[in-house]
Amino acid sequence: MAQFKLPAFGHGGDYNPDQWLDRPDVLEDDIRYMKEAGVNLLSVGIFAWAALEPEEGKYTFGWLRDILDNFHKNGISAFLATPSGARPAWMSKKYPEVLRYENGVKFEHGNRHNHCFTSPVYRSFVTKMNTRLAEEFASHPAVVGWHISNEYSGQCHCENCQRAFRKWLKEKYHTLENVNKAWWTSFWSKTFTDWDQIRSPERNGETSLTGLTLDWMRFVTHQTIDFVKCETAPIKKITPNLPVTINTMQNFTFLSYPKFAEVVDFMGYDCYSKWGKYSDYRTAVDTAFTYDSVRGYLLKPWSLMESTPSQVNWHDVCKIKRPGIHMLSSVQAVAHGSDTVMMFQWRKGRGGPEKFHGAVIGHDMTNKTRVFKEVKEVGALLEKISPIVNAEIKSECALIYDFESFWALNEAQGPVKDKEYHKVLVSHYEALSKRGVNIDVIDSEKDFNAYKVIAAPYLYMVKPGVAERLEAFVENGGTLVLGYFSGVADENDLCFLGGAPGPLKKLAGVWAEETDALYDGQKNAIVINKNDDIDMQGRYECGFMLDVLNLEGAKMVGAYESDYYAGTGALTVKKTGKGETWYIAARTEQRFLDDFYKALLKSSNVTPIVSGLPDGVTVTEREKDGNRYVFVMNFSEKDASVSLPEGVSMITGECVKGLKVLPANGFEIICRK
Amino acid sequence: MAQFKLPAFGHGGDYNPDQWLDRPDVLEDDIRYMKEAGVNLLSVGIFAWAALEPEEGKYTFGWLRDILDNFHKNGISAFLATPSGARPAWMSKKYPEVLRYENGVKFEHGNRHNHCFTSPVYRSFVTKMNTRLAEEFASHPAVVGWHISNEYSGQCHCENCQRAFRKWLKEKYHTLENVNKAWWTSFWSKTFTDWDQIRSPERNGETSLTGLTLDWMRFVTHQTIDFVKCETAPIKKITPNLPVTINTMQNFTFLSYPKFAEVVDFMGYDCYSKWGKYSDYRTAVDTAFTYDSVRGYLLKPWSLMESTPSQVNWHDVCKIKRPGIHMLSSVQAVAHGSDTVMMFQWRKGRGGPEKFHGAVIGHDMTNKTRVFKEVKEVGALLEKISPIVNAEIKSECALIYDFESFWALNEAQGPVKDKEYHKVLVSHYEALSKRGVNIDVIDSEKDFNAYKVIAAPYLYMVKPGVAERLEAFVENGGTLVLGYFSGVADENDLCFLGGAPGPLKKLAGVWAEETDALYDGQKNAIVINKNDDIDMQGRYECGFMLDVLNLEGAKMVGAYESDYYAGTGALTVKKTGKGETWYIAARTEQRFLDDFYKALLKSSNVTPIVSGLPDGVTVTEREKDGNRYVFVMNFSEKDASVSLPEGVSMITGECVKGLKVLPANGFEIICRK
Amino acid sequence: MAQFKLPAFGHGGDYNPDQWLDRPDVLEDDIRYMKEAGVNLLSVGIFAWAALEPEEGKYTFGWLRDILDNFHKNGISAFLATPSGARPAWMSKKYPEVLRYENGVKFEHGNRHNHCFTSPVYRSFVTKMNTRLAEEFASHPAVVGWHISNEYSGQCHCENCQRAFRKWLKEKYHTLENVNKAWWTSFWSKTFTDWDQIRSPERNGETSLTGLTLDWMRFVTHQTIDFVKCETAPIKKITPNLPVTINTMQNFTFLSYPKFAEVVDFMGYDCYSKWGKYSDYRTAVDTAFTYDSVRGYLLKPWSLMESTPSQVNWHDVCKIKRPGIHMLSSVQAVAHGSDTVMMFQWRKGRGGPEKFHGAVIGHDMTNKTRVFKEVKEVGALLEKISPIVNAEIKSECALIYDFESFWALNEAQGPVKDKEYHKVLVSHYEALSKRGVNIDVIDSEKDFNAYKVIAAPYLYMVKPGVAERLEAFVENGGTLVLGYFSGVADENDLCFLGGAPGPLKKLAGVWAEETDALYDGQKNAIVINKNDDIDMQGRYECGFMLDVLNLEGAKMVGAYESDYYAGTGALTVKKTGKGETWYIAARTEQRFLDDFYKALLKSSNVTPIVSGLPDGVTVTEREKDGNRYVFVMNFSEKDASVSLPEGVSMITGECVKGLKVLPANGFEIICRK
Repeated sequence: MAQFKLPAFGHGGDYNPDQWLDRPDVLEDDIRYMKEAGVNLLSVGIFAWAALEPEEGKYTFGWLRDILDNFHKNGISAFLATPSGARPAWMSKKYPEVLRYENGVKFEHGNRHNHCFTSPVYRSFVTKMNTRLAEEFASHPAVVGWHISNEYSGQCHCENCQRAFRKWLKEKYHTLENVNKAWWTSFWSKTFTDWDQIRSPERNGETSLTGLTLDWMRFVTHQTIDFVKCETAPIKKITPNLPVTINTMQNFTFLSYPKFAEVVDFMGYDCYSKWGKYSDYRTAVDTAFTYDSVRGYLLKPWSLMESTPSQVNWHDVCKIKRPGIHMLSSVQAVAHGSDTVMMFQWRKGRGGPEKFHGAVIGHDMTNKTRVFKEVKEVGALLEKISPIVNAEIKSECALIYDFESFWALNEAQGPVKDKEYHKVLVSHYEALSKRGVNIDVIDSEKDFNAYKVIAAPYLYMVKPGVAERLEAFVENGGTLVLGYFSGVADENDLCFLGGAPGPLKKLAGVWAEETDALYDGQKNAIVINKNDDIDMQGRYECGFMLDVLNLEGAKMVGAYESDYYAGTGALTVKKTGKGETWYIAARTEQRFLDDFYKALLKSSNVTPIVSGLPDGVTVTEREKDGNRYVFVMNFSEKDASVSLPEGVSMITGECVKGLKVLPANGFEIICRK
Repeated sequence: MAQFKLPAFGHGGDYNPDQWLDRPDVLEDDIRYMKEAGVNLLSVGIFAWAALEPEEGKYTFGWLRDILDNFHKNGISAFLATPSGARPAWMSKKYPEVLRYENGVKFEHGNRHNHCFTSPVYRSFVTKMNTRLAEEFASHPAVVGWHISNEYSGQCHCENCQRAFRKWLKEKYHTLENVNKAWWTSFWSKTFTDWDQIRSPERNGETSLTGLTLDWMRFVTHQTIDFVKCETAPIKKITPNLPVTINTMQNFTFLSYPKFAEVVDFMGYDCYSKWGKYSDYRTAVDTAFTYDSVRGYLLKPWSLMESTPSQVNWHDVCKIKRPGIHMLSSVQAVAHGSDTVMMFQWRKGRGGPEKFHGAVIGHDMTNKTRVFKEVKEVGALLEKISPIVNAEIKSECALIYDFESFWALNEAQGPVKDKEYHKVLVSHYEALSKRGVNIDVIDSEKDFNAYKVIAAPYLYMVKPGVAERLEAFVENGGTLVLGYFSGVADENDLCFLGGAPGPLKKLAGVWAEETDALYDGQKNAIVINKNDDIDMQGRYECGFMLDVLNLEGAKMVGAYESDYYAGTGALTVKKTGKGETWYIAARTEQRFLDDFYKALLKSSNVTPIVSGLPDGVTVTEREKDGNRYVFVMNFSEKDASVSLPEGVSMITGECVKGLKVLPANGFEIICRK
Repeated sequence: MAQFKLPAFGHGGDYNPDQWLDRPDVLEDDIRYMKEAGVNLLSVGIFAWAALEPEEGKYTFGWLRDILDNFHKNGISAFLATPSGARPAWMSKKYPEVLRYENGVKFEHGNRHNHCFTSPVYRSFVTKMNTRLAEEFASHPAVVGWHISNEYSGQCHCENCQRAFRKWLKEKYHTLENVNKAWWTSFWSKTFTDWDQIRSPERNGETSLTGLTLDWMRFVTHQTIDFVKCETAPIKKITPNLPVTINTMQNFTFLSYPKFAEVVDFMGYDCYSKWGKYSDYRTAVDTAFTYDSVRGYLLKPWSLMESTPSQVNWHDVCKIKRPGIHMLSSVQAVAHGSDTVMMFQWRKGRGGPEKFHGAVIGHDMTNKTRVFKEVKEVGALLEKISPIVNAEIKSECALIYDFESFWALNEAQGPVKDKEYHKVLVSHYEALSKRGVNIDVIDSEKDFNAYKVIAAPYLYMVKPGVAERLEAFVENGGTLVLGYFSGVADENDLCFLGGAPGPLKKLAGVWAEETDALYDGQKNAIVINKNDDIDMQGRYECGFMLDVLNLEGAKMVGAYESDYYAGTGALTVKKTGKGETWYIAARTEQRFLDDFYKALLKSSNVTPIVSGLPDGVTVTEREKDGNRYVFVMNFSEKDASVSLPEGVSMITGECVKGLKVLPANGFEIICRK
């Protein structure tokens, strides 16, 4: 496997010189401005297919070579992209099979990210293009990695895909009987008696078989990965030492990104948070959650591949990042494990849908803007903290975010329509984050052994082995947190018999006999009296989904306040071996989770990086060669007095220790031994 | 016609043993639990086609026979279902004509309830299947009736259906000239000059001809009934003594259910009210309205064919029925004429979209749940009150809910977009219900003679003969209540010339020169001074639609308070023969209707079952063999003191008389002579 | 060019006798009622194709001749319509190419306004029909003009249209290289290498190329005009002296109506404002804006071709126009340049979707209604003021509303999703209108020389020559008002390089470095201190879009109050030659615009028709033969005391001068020299 280890933090972004080939003065300005802004890394060639192969079989790589040569001459590196994110029009016209189909209707050529992942024709074109690209630039000194395609997404329902899906099913299930069993086809007369009866779930087709839908989503991930393999096969062969990545997308949940670990050397991520819509702290927590999720796919440093230096063009309201926010959000990415700060885009095009997306260089064509100056400051900072590059992050706490469980939960009809999986997970993340600790956001297939606390509060689907591994974790002293509507279904979305939380019943010591649902505005509460199990007490509102529990070995710590299940268990604990399992039976207000994890992390002996964080301040720590780098960031809108660990400021070079006032949007980065 | 007369109340629900054929232990448990819960009637075979005919022409009925044998052995009865609600995949694959079409696009196989009702192929398969089923189980002692298909619904626009539609039109209109006249095709150049130019109203086709749309909706009802006839032909022949039913669906308004009277022996109904979303009383009134509507289709006892013992899975929020509500809502069904309390579903499947729908037996597989206990209590009660089974309901008051009038009103552009037909009707129903009387909800083709009061407050369409029959009703002493935007169009949706309310003008004595519409939040009021015509006075808000009346024989009782029609008639009365006709010119607040019907029923000598009902308490009465059974139900959230009629409690066996306190959710059933 | 000069104001509307040919009594009543109501002008034959050509090639014009003969006999005139707005069913059936296509799917026959504008078959039918109509009625004395089709609208994506689009593109761009450059196809690999690769932007096709979309919209306008030419070719040849018009539609923005100036002799307009939803004044301003827009297409008197005497049938709530409003809104149309007051519709049909649309004669078939009386009063008034017919309107102020700029702005992604172009323009119009002046609403291709003040507050696209013409305007002493997000893109939607406002930078003297966007509820403010440039001061809220300016020659008059751009320019002015250019950098509350234009019009020496207008009163002036006719209208809900100019009341014939009290909904029309 190729190593992704940059010598310094990468700073730059998407660069589309192919839009300006008739303006050599502009290309010259670009280099000059890049150097001024401390930009050292650009992604080039994304969507450049028409420029690289203007007609079938005619390759025009000269312009790209010129760009890369010029980069190298100026000490600038590049991620070289494969151009498969958009096809040239001649290809769609001549080979319509490369287009996507839905309900038997072909999509016309247009837009982007809309090819069939199965099409042999498209794969053949991709193979040829990538082979030629790799051959051409295999040893180019400016190229430091491969950026495969762009933001993979979407589905195709053409007959090629139907066949591939059936083939995948056959390999997974061997017999139709197994399929019928896994998908519980005995309801609604759905039994399949021939493989050819199976089709992907489309708008006008079968949308009621959750097992089929789930397998289709798995297949889409599989087939996308298979397509990535097709893309990378010539690349890996010709340029085995260049690392490859894909850029994943914020809040895009239809591909199981962790599965891509097998085909990339590091993970890329495109982050477009809505700074300025809510409080900065709210946005910071939401963003940090996604950063730690991306990091969790490989549990390695990753690359912030796209972000905006200012505003995007596709939010409903494209508010400008306030001064200082670009710096702070860039630092936040590094704090959570990114080794790059890259932006979409270096320069705004004159036309096209993204002409109003933020860029380092705008339509004014100058370096005189506020945005340019802020980007330049980020460049300077990244250089200053370059010793941190490649540093790892270690966490004592993990939060389980499982794509397949999420899919199955979302497909489930009942007990509420909108499951709010993401929001629920973020509320736990926020409470953990307030404790001043690193957090790994992982799927349920990762190793649990390294953690002291694992929160799995909404684990609807429990895949084979997960319960056993959680049992081992608790037996060995771990603290496990479970929640409502968990342990409901197996990997095929078949409900566990014997009652929820299914295979987690033993650990939780509860049977969730019913899961109630309340309408908006209807509330219950959890009441916790002083007790010996956890250092919290009080009354906390709850609603949304509420499990009605029977205790089967667990101890009741908090009880419902009202309704027909008043007085029954709403918060329970059960000890197993050296550890314990908590069960939070209903969705609570945030204050409950804040108090709960405060007490829990203390009793679980989790060590905070910084204790007593003021409101709005977050902290992380990266480690490398025995050095520990602490990032302290003030996302509140006022000064915050933080008790800093002893060490050397990476910014000022001075020793720091004890209370320090961070201004709003201020930050500090400390190296401590 | 076969008789639907159960020896005792049916208690049970949908049972899908075909999902558990590999688990004989589960099937054994089922029987044991059924007997414990007092369950004596199950619907079996719904959606079981794939299990009954796994490949074309190969019938596998053994498992079903085993189930029925076992039922009989244990004193349990069955409604035997025809499986046409869902097809096996092999049929869709081999005979795509069985699938529905829209805008020339075929729907793929999937989901349920989506076959073409016209397809000769599908009809042939149905005939074969139903013949075999009837032959096989004709004399099975467990089978007490036929459950034909499931929740008929939907439309198909394939060429077979287009041809059938044209044939139906030819039989109705004979000549194209008649069609053109009936549909007023002289606007927008719509004149048809060839039958083949006529097509069903589809998304991409003709949606502006309300006459066409109306006839298409009638045809859909006709064709669905024709399909039912195809289903029942072999059944009626082979098992002439078994009653047949279909299960109609709550708030499903695209089939004119009353027309199905010709093909069923009793009416089935699936009721899924949103208990717990609003106040229980609100839900009770909404539910009772639908119960009396279903009863009104045949004006005979009916069967609650589906309901949930706890929560559904398809509401936005699937709140659990609070303890006692399952009992009370079951009693309410019986109170309004149901002879069964059946539930969807006996047991939750492990997979499929309905795996989280409430059931008597859940994924815990036990009888230890709250839900099981409540179901068991209902079983015990139904046994206790079994003398009431088959009792009739007689009403002095009727409310006209006419499907075709509703369709035409809904298709009408203006005076408001959302006509709120259902809500308007329910508001009248509620006011009548508060008077402690039985209410028949009927269409305009039923006999009017038995009633003292008929409310027809929103009768947009007046079909031939209806005005004449209403005239006879009033002449003979009846009290008729009409309302705004009534008497507007004839059965072809052609507006009556001469002004609204068209043929009802003579009875009403008013000409509605204009119908105003107010935006949300804009209000007028009706002011009624002390008068000799009705015992009410005061100021009542009104809005929505407001007729501006010219009096042509009627007397003004209430006047508008403001706007340019201030002082003109808003409530009028006209006497005809021994009776009188009231006209309520605008939509009012509920308080108006409450006061109005209170005075009106008194002056019309309608006898309440119970007088002076406290808020939140409802009452009905069933009659059989000279006995009268009074149901008193407290849907308020507190104790209610009710003045009970003298009689014997069917619950305690004790004599009751005078004031009794019913707790919240409490009820009493009294037999009085 | 044929002249549109009526001898008196036209009063009447759409008349569909073809719906009543079997009722000669009704047709007789019509004539009688028309004369009573002072109705002298009807549009006939709209949608009458099926009555005019019931089968291919068989023309039946007799009934129409009878109607026109009868008109003439009774002194009534007609606009004769071509019937192309709806086809007969036989044509769609036999020649499906006349139907529209989208995404390769044919629309079925039905509804109206849905033919392919390119189809040679349809054009051939239209040519034949219009030739025959013209021949038949060329010299009919009742016919005073042609009403071509009805409310042109919509698009077709069939292969005929694709070919026509490509042909149009070739004529415009000559080479694909030019196309690629204009559309900036170098992004997302969109370079076209063959003309046949280009297709219209459809739902399933290319929606990301704003240049393509913009050209498609231009093509749709072009092709619709080309279709009008096809319609009018025989007409112009056979009846060269009859003026032709089309009826444009309120708030319909997908055709660039000003371009139709080349094919019509006067402009028709269908106006259906929502009187009674908001305050009458609010509706009056919105309506007046559209009146002045329609007038602006040709800058000539126009024709109110449709309006409702009472209510429409297609608003969500079809509120009745309150008494007096039909009169006042009719006067308003005349006040803003209409020479007709025509209504949809003379008589309600019995069926069809428009049977509940307001009409002079309703389903009661009489002249006894409030509506009839109000229409009759309008007829009497129009006769009284007939000297005013053909009078022109001259304005010192213009507001630029540019369809192509609007389209491009709407297609732009960012800085906000909903651009609210119309609302922004109306807010400027309202502020100008409060000053008691005539206002021309024009596109950017009109002559600027006649004006003292031009407001171009949202001119996203600046077409070639516009900046130069504005410069000349300012140089010569004009006052120009610009606003945020202006001067951004050229006619191909390519952003100007060098920064916004692009070619307007020189005039404005500002560089809009960034355009911020605020979420709903987020606010900034503009603070203006006492200054010498404009007679206004204070604090005004602003939000939505906010330019952050660099002053490059302009003077700051108002500054932002808060945020990181606090203290920077929010209102600036720059003098050029004898004139000056104002730049309003953010969207403000209405009060700002009111104060701003009050001061500006004064300093720009714009002469008000009436000074010191009370709230809710509007005024316009028409001129003819040296006479000036002043219209003063009170749209407030109370008496208003207005300082009238000296002259003679056209209503009472009396001299008026000085303060006069106009009641709510009252008006006065004064002739002054």
